[in-house]
Amino acid sequence: MYTIVVEGVLPELDGGRHPVKRLVGDVYEVGADIYRDGHDTIAARIRHRGPGEEEWRQSPLAYEPAEDRWYGSFALDRIGKWHYTVEAWTDRFGTWRGDLEKKVAAGQDVTPELLEGAELIEATARRAWFGEARTALRAAAQRIRDTDIARSARITAALTPELHALVETHYVPDDVTVYDKELELYVDRPRAGFAAWYELFPRSQSLDPKQHGTFDDAARRIPRLAELGYDVIYLPPVHPIGRMFRKGKNNTLTPEPDDVGSPWAIGNENGGHTAIEPALGPIEDFDRFVRFANDHGMEVALDYALQCAPDHPWVQDHPEWFHVRPDGTIKYAENPPKKYQDIYPLNFWCDDREGLWNACRDVLFYWIGHGVKTFRVDNPHTKPFAFWEWVIDEVQSKHPDVIFLAEAFTRPKKMKNLAKLGFTQSYTYFTWKNTAFELREYLEEMTQTEMAEYFRGNFFVNTPDILHEYLQHGGPQAFRVRLLLASTLLPLYGIYSGYELYENVPVRPGSEEYMHSEKYEIRVRDWEAPGNLNPMIQRINRARRENPALQRYPNLQFHRSENDQILFYSKVAPDAGNYLLMVVNLDPHRPQETMVHVPLELLGLTEHEPYTVEDLLTGARYTWRSSRNYVRLDPHSQQAGHILRLERG
Amino acid sequence: MYTIVVEGVLPELDGGRHPVKRLVGDVYEVGADIYRDGHDTIAARIRHRGPGEEEWRQSPLAYEPAEDRWYGSFALDRIGKWHYTVEAWTDRFGTWRGDLEKKVAAGQDVTPELLEGAELIEATARRAWFGEARTALRAAAQRIRDTDIARSARITAALTPELHALVETHYVPDDVTVYDKELELYVDRPRAGFAAWYELFPRSQSLDPKQHGTFDDAARRIPRLAELGYDVIYLPPVHPIGRMFRKGKNNTLTPEPDDVGSPWAIGNENGGHTAIEPALGPIEDFDRFVRFANDHGMEVALDYALQCAPDHPWVQDHPEWFHVRPDGTIKYAENPPKKYQDIYPLNFWCDDREGLWNACRDVLFYWIGHGVKTFRVDNPHTKPFAFWEWVIDEVQSKHPDVIFLAEAFTRPKKMKNLAKLGFTQSYTYFTWKNTAFELREYLEEMTQTEMAEYFRGNFFVNTPDILHEYLQHGGPQAFRVRLLLASTLLPLYGIYSGYELYENVPVRPGSEEYMHSEKYEIRVRDWEAPGNLNPMIQRINRARRENPALQRYPNLQFHRSENDQILFYSKVAPDAGNYLLMVVNLDPHRPQETMVHVPLELLGLTEHEPYTVEDLLTGARYTWRSSRNYVRLDPHSQQAGHILRLERG
Repeated sequence: MYTIVVEGVLPELDGGRHPVKRLVGDVYEVGADIYRDGHDTIAARIRHRGPGEEEWRQSPLAYEPAEDRWYGSFALDRIGKWHYTVEAWTDRFGTWRGDLEKKVAAGQDVTPELLEGAELIEATARRAWFGEARTALRAAAQRIRDTDIARSARITAALTPELHALVETHYVPDDVTVYDKELELYVDRPRAGFAAWYELFPRSQSLDPKQHGTFDDAARRIPRLAELGYDVIYLPPVHPIGRMFRKGKNNTLTPEPDDVGSPWAIGNENGGHTAIEPALGPIEDFDRFVRFANDHGMEVALDYALQCAPDHPWVQDHPEWFHVRPDGTIKYAENPPKKYQDIYPLNFWCDDREGLWNACRDVLFYWIGHGVKTFRVDNPHTKPFAFWEWVIDEVQSKHPDVIFLAEAFTRPKKMKNLAKLGFTQSYTYFTWKNTAFELREYLEEMTQTEMAEYFRGNFFVNTPDILHEYLQHGGPQAFRVRLLLASTLLPLYGIYSGYELYENVPVRPGSEEYMHSEKYEIRVRDWEAPGNLNPMIQRINRARRENPALQRYPNLQFHRSENDQILFYSKVAPDAGNYLLMVVNLDPHRPQETMVHVPLELLGLTEHEPYTVEDLLTGARYTWRSSRNYVRLDPHSQQAGHILRLERG
Repeated sequence: MYTIVVEGVLPELDGGRHPVKRLVGDVYEVGADIYRDGHDTIAARIRHRGPGEEEWRQSPLAYEPAEDRWYGSFALDRIGKWHYTVEAWTDRFGTWRGDLEKKVAAGQDVTPELLEGAELIEATARRAWFGEARTALRAAAQRIRDTDIARSARITAALTPELHALVETHYVPDDVTVYDKELELYVDRPRAGFAAWYELFPRSQSLDPKQHGTFDDAARRIPRLAELGYDVIYLPPVHPIGRMFRKGKNNTLTPEPDDVGSPWAIGNENGGHTAIEPALGPIEDFDRFVRFANDHGMEVALDYALQCAPDHPWVQDHPEWFHVRPDGTIKYAENPPKKYQDIYPLNFWCDDREGLWNACRDVLFYWIGHGVKTFRVDNPHTKPFAFWEWVIDEVQSKHPDVIFLAEAFTRPKKMKNLAKLGFTQSYTYFTWKNTAFELREYLEEMTQTEMAEYFRGNFFVNTPDILHEYLQHGGPQAFRVRLLLASTLLPLYGIYSGYELYENVPVRPGSEEYMHSEKYEIRVRDWEAPGNLNPMIQRINRARRENPALQRYPNLQFHRSENDQILFYSKVAPDAGNYLLMVVNLDPHRPQETMVHVPLELLGLTEHEPYTVEDLLTGARYTWRSSRNYVRLDPHSQQAGHILRLERG
């Protein structure tokens, strides 16, 4: 039983069930409601422990009377899992000292109070660790008790700030109340929260459509990708591809003999999840590819797709890891009445659960051993949630710098839960949010609610599975608009190769699948074809690197635009003096104009002061005055919008 | 590790730390988010246990696709502490059956599926409790396996609803996931949630101001109070009153010899918290008073004020229960530089904590033994929160019908925490909420947010400590307005005697204390003085009893009124066909008029349908049409507002 109540600690997710996420270098702010009966003064602090630390560190909490709440913070100086909690105690000396001051001011007799104070100081002296402090405390108590000196001198001795500080340092509280939960916090490396991704199929990177590309072919693209400002090169599965029930071009069931198949049908006689498709080159070539990317400041992300083709070695070696039917056959994937005979799902709750889960974990360790620190996880929502919580913890407790991106296109609650269970980043519904209302509602949930504590959206403008209607029908301007949105709304965004060439032909009307999808065939393109999107990508990625406001997550705010076709939002980083306003014309077909309402207060401006904004896309400068300003954006000039940086006088 | 995720269970307070409150007879609604990986069907239920029950009872949860959430309920058929949680499992037979239907419809070969189903049914048979069910299940499996009969007959056998029901009844899930918290729910008797309180000082109930009133004097008022519709008679402390540092009239420090003192300075040579002030009569008279009130359908609430006068027997017998100063004296109450020398606070964390706490608890048991089931607790926020949680649980685990009302005029977080720790009801800031904005904001928090799950406000219009400025300056009309608000905004309200006589003189300008406060002297009044408020009180209490909508807590809704001086709100009970609209003129001085916007949809009305409302205060009837209607309220006609009941065609 405690004297003090400690509750309402934030951040806290689901009563402490799940960790909050932050980036290394962040200052972690904690708030708590702390109170007790009566009028005694309380003192409180945060206890926190970084990864690998056994001793608690402490940071003070200060009382904010206007909110009747306590606040404090500590710096996150290393990556990995942190723990923290809050504790409070009665500040007996502070209470006594405050009361004494009031009684003295009211001219009351304080003889008994002086004796009480001396007792408190002596008790503190008994617990003090250092002889010097003990002596000083005892001397003070002695003086406060000393009836041979004037009362006023005794009072003065009791109220010196030096004595106050000395007691505070050495006081051992007798009623420490610890918050009933020890909370967790996962701290990631910076790239977990700020990066531009580029997805490419290595097999499509030869110069000859008839020739299967290799890692060396793909490596030739690295210098240019680095120049364009990408941070992560994501490769779909690079493993041997199953031959049984292999899919043909455009997902047909009747492949030609030379069809290459889907990389997600993993495994054949050449190996499974820890093998490389021989046509891409040996593992040494993969290692060189990774090193070459690293040398250019980028890293390589691999796909982690836990499913097997019927000719995957595990099917022979561990049939018990699959679902076996009464007739002894292994169950292929299905969503009745649809059948996916080229894929065997794993049975995560099989009798050899431990063996299977360890094998899945060891796949990650294998690739980590080959320099991969980022995994894009295929369809995690079709595998047990318990598995993800376990495997991510297994990996990150050894390698806290490993990043997991969840490709969980499922219901919102499942998507959120995967993030809570440990996924560093998540794919989102961004591709399907195209109106101002949809974008604003979705982004406000993601950045302004509790979601911002654990969910980091990564805004892919397209994927090999998703060519949205907006891109199919909006022409190159649609690609510019979506690129500008993805890259400035969130610090994490990505494109799948072909986007820069405005590829927009679906396999059939109404489908979001690409015609001649790279999932089933080799596609060779001229990456520098005239008019491509690369110059805009390069400008945007440079703006993102040069402007701290674009590297943060919860600083997004939407502001009023008088035309619903034009979205207006800000991202500011006042500590870095960085103030950005984004204006985007969502209509890829027609010019639109609007009055935008600039949030002067947020920018630190007063109503009639003129100010200059510079468009980081074009270099143009505009001088604005007051909060309401005119903007016109015309698709015919290839202008999707502005990234306006406020210039400070 | 679980396959299934069960989370987001509501109601749940602070992660299960505190119980939710309800009334007996309520249906308890529970919601939960439940999901697993993949497409398998889930089944789920609530497990709940009433007070004294050892076995869990079960209620089904049903899936609501629009919200991706599960809902269920159970009836609260007894008072006391309930427990509940949620559990879910994979519905393997349902999944199999659904898939089979789809495959059959698609004309696929389902031979292996039939074998899988037969295995499932046989496994269920092995766990079935009754031989008959076992036999039926085995026969069904046999038929599904039977290759001698037509495939279509086997399929038909697999899909019969009878088999489905039989398997559902006897299936023992292999992956039950239980929500990780067992939640608590406290169910009170009806009067805990709906009552009109009346506070009186028994010593003021004689007919002669010079004579100390007795329980018998007070008993003479019972028939009339019952007639007026009160449910609870609350008595300030009835114990012997301390003589040392006794306060004189108007809280002076210089009492006359015959001054009666404050009843809250408890204890003298005649006894302490379990004694009766001799001038009120012996304990037998108290018992008779309680019985007489009960016979009139009312109950008696006592004050529980844990503090002692210096001449309380505990000071002699248990000096260790108080704060002893270094000079050996006992510490009186203070709020420096203010001193309260007539009161010794108890030291709840003294070395004999257990002895003191038990003694405090036994005071309650003593009065419960004398028929008292409701306690108004004086200043609970100045005693440890841990004590309240302990003592309320000690009492209610033996006497679940006991009600505790917290008089905690403290900061909101402390007030809320006391409610969470077990107080049945709470005093509120109502007296200080006088504008439409303040009332609406406060009531919406209390009835529409999580607060409604645990906090039951009791709206006292005045107390011996609080005569609000609004009443001091608003004349009798102010008393009518506040009465109408208190009694119709919440199901619990109270008045302190004298209110019905419009007593409105403060001890000095700017004070909320009464002149000649009954706290320090005997006040004899003519309770039926001409023009008193009793007729209105009687009409209101009758309306409250006859209209279920006024007996409920979270059904309050505010609606638009075009004049801020007129508050417009509804309380509806659709299941009882009871629809009420309240219109109150907050201005006690001037007539006000407005257009009120009737919430037609809430009342089940369409736009142009005429409808009749009856004023339960006057009997007047008005026919309205459409949502916007005119109201005028004039203080000169003594009209504070309307309680309008919709008459259904």
